[in-house]
Amino acid sequence: MRRIGFFKLSLIVLAIYLFLCLPSDAGLLFLSGGDKAPKFKFEHHFQENIDKLIAGSLESSIVWDRLAEMTDTFGNRLVGSDALEKSIDWIIGKVKGDGLSVTTEEVVVDYWERNEESLYFLSPTRGRVKLHMLGLGRSPATPVDKDGINHGITAEIIVVTSKEELEQLGAAGELKGRVVLYNKPFEAYSTDVIYRSMGATWAQEHGAVAVLVRSVAPLSLQTAHTGNAYPASIPAASISIEDAQLLARVLNRHQQDPKQFPDWPKVHLTMNAQTTLNSKKSRNIVVELKGRELPEEVVVVGGHIDSWDVGSGAIDDGAGCFIAWETVRQLSRLDKPPRRTVRAVFWTSEENGAAGGRVYAANHPETNTTRHVFAFESDYGVFDPYGINFTPGRRAQEGPHRFNSYEYLTAAGEHFLGSRKDLGYYGAGSFVLPNGIGADIAPLCKQGVACAQFRPADPFPLPYSTSPYYIKKNDVKSESRELGHRRHHHDGEDAQDPPRRPVDSGYFYYHHTEADTMGAFTPDQVKNSAAVMAVWTFIAAESRVEF
Amino acid sequence: MRRIGFFKLSLIVLAIYLFLCLPSDAGLLFLSGGDKAPKFKFEHHFQENIDKLIAGSLESSIVWDRLAEMTDTFGNRLVGSDALEKSIDWIIGKVKGDGLSVTTEEVVVDYWERNEESLYFLSPTRGRVKLHMLGLGRSPATPVDKDGINHGITAEIIVVTSKEELEQLGAAGELKGRVVLYNKPFEAYSTDVIYRSMGATWAQEHGAVAVLVRSVAPLSLQTAHTGNAYPASIPAASISIEDAQLLARVLNRHQQDPKQFPDWPKVHLTMNAQTTLNSKKSRNIVVELKGRELPEEVVVVGGHIDSWDVGSGAIDDGAGCFIAWETVRQLSRLDKPPRRTVRAVFWTSEENGAAGGRVYAANHPETNTTRHVFAFESDYGVFDPYGINFTPGRRAQEGPHRFNSYEYLTAAGEHFLGSRKDLGYYGAGSFVLPNGIGADIAPLCKQGVACAQFRPADPFPLPYSTSPYYIKKNDVKSESRELGHRRHHHDGEDAQDPPRRPVDSGYFYYHHTEADTMGAFTPDQVKNSAAVMAVWTFIAAESRVEF
Repeated sequence: MRRIGFFKLSLIVLAIYLFLCLPSDAGLLFLSGGDKAPKFKFEHHFQENIDKLIAGSLESSIVWDRLAEMTDTFGNRLVGSDALEKSIDWIIGKVKGDGLSVTTEEVVVDYWERNEESLYFLSPTRGRVKLHMLGLGRSPATPVDKDGINHGITAEIIVVTSKEELEQLGAAGELKGRVVLYNKPFEAYSTDVIYRSMGATWAQEHGAVAVLVRSVAPLSLQTAHTGNAYPASIPAASISIEDAQLLARVLNRHQQDPKQFPDWPKVHLTMNAQTTLNSKKSRNIVVELKGRELPEEVVVVGGHIDSWDVGSGAIDDGAGCFIAWETVRQLSRLDKPPRRTVRAVFWTSEENGAAGGRVYAANHPETNTTRHVFAFESDYGVFDPYGINFTPGRRAQEGPHRFNSYEYLTAAGEHFLGSRKDLGYYGAGSFVLPNGIGADIAPLCKQGVACAQFRPADPFPLPYSTSPYYIKKNDVKSESRELGHRRHHHDGEDAQDPPRRPVDSGYFYYHHTEADTMGAFTPDQVKNSAAVMAVWTFIAAESRVEF
Repeated sequence: MRRIGFFKLSLIVLAIYLFLCLPSDAGLLFLSGGDKAPKFKFEHHFQENIDKLIAGSLESSIVWDRLAEMTDTFGNRLVGSDALEKSIDWIIGKVKGDGLSVTTEEVVVDYWERNEESLYFLSPTRGRVKLHMLGLGRSPATPVDKDGINHGITAEIIVVTSKEELEQLGAAGELKGRVVLYNKPFEAYSTDVIYRSMGATWAQEHGAVAVLVRSVAPLSLQTAHTGNAYPASIPAASISIEDAQLLARVLNRHQQDPKQFPDWPKVHLTMNAQTTLNSKKSRNIVVELKGRELPEEVVVVGGHIDSWDVGSGAIDDGAGCFIAWETVRQLSRLDKPPRRTVRAVFWTSEENGAAGGRVYAANHPETNTTRHVFAFESDYGVFDPYGINFTPGRRAQEGPHRFNSYEYLTAAGEHFLGSRKDLGYYGAGSFVLPNGIGADIAPLCKQGVACAQFRPADPFPLPYSTSPYYIKKNDVKSESRELGHRRHHHDGEDAQDPPRRPVDSGYFYYHHTEADTMGAFTPDQVKNSAAVMAVWTFIAAESRVEF
């Protein structure tokens, strides 16, 4: 065997490196082309494959039909429940029927069971008034007596609208022995959800006996929204916005005029919830399509398969999983699979601490021979496709071959989706927005994998001036104003229709409620979203660039 | 006593007639004034009084506060219930406290009590799935056995989407012994409500044992909408749109593929409702402010004080009554009362057959010395004011002194309200639309009295393309397009906000549901609506014209 000199070897390595790592199909930057020339060009077969993926996704309502059948047959899918595991078995059977490769990954999970629960306002004039409530996940039960009987808690309420107010009243001893009602007006889920997750922990410090949290939502039809709460020693339940306002008004009247309204309002809360730690096994589902050229580079696409124990878990997040499944099914029907491996993963236990996402990341660490290049999640509902949120990965930004993957995807979205009038009312999924990190892919994002979130359009683009529960937020308006100049006027769109915005408040009509059902979206929205997810996944799996 | 000759007498009568009936303050048509000149002019004191009425209505949140206190204290107000009569007593006390004259009129009413009720889908895979239902008013209970025990009805379902389909399946014997589910997609309340009111009557003819009616609404968060049904011999309940779709899908799967889905879906319905005819007494409330010049001519303004037995009856129709009450209170604070008598009437038993409206009309027939000149109702919710619907009366159209009262009110709305930026987001209550007949004033309208309805703006002007439950209705779009050219661009209005439309579908988010509460509107909306109602009532009571 002849020996190759060090210099020569270095040159070969460099050549291979450049071949593998330079954005060859994507690149060829037309820096001199002026404003209107495309900055990136794409290999010719991209368009052909993308057309096929879209046509395939739109040709039937299979995704909608399957999701409806599964949710109608098994109901919602709380982690630890039989219904979740039956649903997982059902999916595995159908994926095999599609001729796709499927495996599962065991995840040990905690099991929180709701059991019987109720909340009454003890009105001096009306008697027991049943309120609209849902216990929060991880909440303990109301205490039992020495004979093991749960009589519930009967106590005066105290109302706060902020943590500051809680601390003040707590310092004054006003929370002791009382049920704290957090009656925070809705601003945004991201800022308000902390009252749901931390409310009980904060209030127990001051001697409160339970907490009620006004549901985090922009609109309510007596709708209670459950969700996880950080484990505390006192029970925690959500109540509808209307009922929170009722209690706040009644207390306010008493405090303003105790002569006319002599009774401090009381509630009776009963919860029989139980948590058993590490008591159940669940599974991630992994559907894999091997890459034709770069099988060791993985594009992962998915959602979480568990849900809350109300509604049917259709938008949170059954639909996310099912459009990822359809993405792999459509990619498998192309003449050749994409260059990179594509994996649809349905993570378990997202709602109860995201154990599925952590287990998946731990099971698939980056090694010399395999790594994730792109993680793409859908967990913001499936409505009309709007675009994606995206966070570039470490490799694209580091080293001598820095690559603007955000700019690349923006160009790709505009090129392949921007003018697709067949993909829905607005945007056709073409827009790229910042911040693609989601709960299930977070462990991958943390390792520096490029991360994206499927972003639908808001199904209810309410004017802030008309919703009784909104605080006017100019920054939200500004966001949509900024996006305004990119508005596509599609045929059939009416000047009377409000402009669309990326989903935000409209998702939170349904989130964690009895109304999270197939009724939240239409078969066309599911088709269009599946098509858009397939297109973005194809781009990620076919382009050799580092994202 | 000197005798007056016939000719002389005739002249005097004619002079009096002309003085009383000619549109003296309103009239003086500027026919030669070109397009921009006002067609009508108003006496100078109109503006001054209207400014006072508006300022008075906006100065406090008394209407909102009172309605909240009453509904929080007594709950909803089903006709026949103690809660309604307690609410009526409470109102009378407060009206007296305002220094206003108040009387009541007895109305004998039927009493329908809901009692315990439930509906389960008996799923072969999930067991008993509790559905979201509300029995319909006037429905009988499910049958009792010989020992008087109500076991409920367990039966197969059959789904229809139209009366035609019902008749076809009925003729084929497919309804016998089954529970009929009317799963009609929402088009408009006016066209769809017949399935709720007549569904049981139609289905019993074909041997059905009960009916379920998909709630008549454009949007649902598992929301059941009750309402009156024409008395039939089989029980009738509403169910949420989501649950109607669930049952329809499950039956469809069985019918399409009975091998894979061998079970015909069944439900278990239990209702313990009871109706007792003519068993209770209720009352209309009449608050009166005597006219200063024409006390025998009455402008009536009001709403209905009864409600359904869910939610708190705040928008249907507590708010309507309370803005009418405020109208009289504000008019009573003017330096002088209006020329004509103004009566705020809170009719009872509207939801259960409109007996209150009939009794009122019978108690106040037109005589030689007293008559109604204008009847103004609010029963379409209280949101941002948009305008009124109006039907001219008989006298304005008949005889030698024909008067275009529609045109007159249109000019008055534009003149006094069109530019009031302080009265809300859009229109400021200035617009006049056709068809002002409403349930409580219908007996008066039938006699030829001019009739108007307070019309708020739609709180949820959804684009038809985004709601999953809509059938696209071009005529609805056309209506709003027509109105579009009259849009006022107010300060603070954002180009991103959708254009407003007169209320239609947005009211039916709440109508007859648990969500009909104070949470459906804001204190500002109530203030603005009270101001607008006071202005229109003043115009009707101060102008000497025949409407």
